[in-house]
Amino acid sequence: MILNTFEGCSSGSWKIEHLRPVTGESLPKAACLNILPGHNAGNSPGFVWSLRGVTSYVRYVHRDEREQLTPLQPPLGRPEATRAALIPIKKSETWWDLPQDDRRKIFEEQSRHIATGLKYLPAIARRLYQSRELGEPFDFLTWFEYAPADAAAFEDLVDALRRTKEWTYVTREIDIRLIRMPE
Amino acid sequence: MILNTFEGCSSGSWKIEHLRPVTGESLPKAACLNILPGHNAGNSPGFVWSLRGVTSYVRYVHRDEREQLTPLQPPLGRPEATRAALIPIKKSETWWDLPQDDRRKIFEEQSRHIATGLKYLPAIARRLYQSRELGEPFDFLTWFEYAPADAAAFEDLVDALRRTKEWTYVTREIDIRLIRMPE
Repeated sequence: MILNTFEGCSSGSWKIEHLRPVTGESLPKAACLNILPGHNAGNSPGFVWSLRGVTSYVRYVHRDEREQLTPLQPPLGRPEATRAALIPIKKSETWWDLPQDDRRKIFEEQSRHIATGLKYLPAIARRLYQSRELGEPFDFLTWFEYAPADAAAFEDLVDALRRTKEWTYVTREIDIRLIRMPE
Repeated sequence: MILNTFEGCSSGSWKIEHLRPVTGESLPKAACLNILPGHNAGNSPGFVWSLRGVTSYVRYVHRDEREQLTPLQPPLGRPEATRAALIPIKKSETWWDLPQDDRRKIFEEQSRHIATGLKYLPAIARRLYQSRELGEPFDFLTWFEYAPADAAAFEDLVDALRRTKEWTYVTREIDIRLIRMPE
């Protein structure tokens, strides 16, 4: 399990290309994003906001799906993957009150969340952080990394997901696009 | 969502009748247990240890099962329910690495966790707290409340669960039995 704090700040390892509210309230503008290990608060230069999340076990992926996903999933930190997205999402209480089988059905059988993601492998690297149990303002933070040449494919992926039934349960979503700063 | 801190201490709202390690390392002995709202640390008299958990959405219960459970589930705090148990549990990384369908299969189709619990309703009130994402030493804390007359039934319930395949993934478990102190 990896707990990270994402901080919007004035200088950091990723330049914020844009920060756009997709649904609900936005976050304050910030020039850069820093990713700090553990439970940090305001340790980046020109700190503006922070979001925390922790990696955890899969909640919907079945064995046959994982067998397809795992060999194709690229690691984070590929040198060519100089573009990233941080997409914080909150879902409604109606979603969280659904039993497990109903959530799974909407997530995959109706919305094809896993199957759609699979089409963009190995171009798009992804890491999901859980935030709901941490008392954070969002339920998840998804982190994506890709090469500039795959930027259009990434747009297709997020567009496809946002048109699903699953997304009708999203009450807040922010799309933060990032460019890696030279070391 | 409810975040609580359970504190082993020298005086509190529940007397610790016994604290017994079932699997793995125990916790230090304490005379009483206090349940504090939120993220507390060491605020009880004669503080010995603390465990935190947060209520969350169901991870395995299906719609048909919930329709059976919900009308039978008693609330916490019934005047006659003067006995309680706090059972902190940690499962192995092998468990957490399993895909969702495999965990569900072991949990219910093989171990009958939900069906077994159902047999003890409405006698035994239960609340599950998630702790894994909080970086706590246990993955869950389960809190049970029952009347003294149902103490034998509660023994049957925990005995039945401990003999399941699901429990072969438990790497640490402590059984803390409690008696409510007079107000």
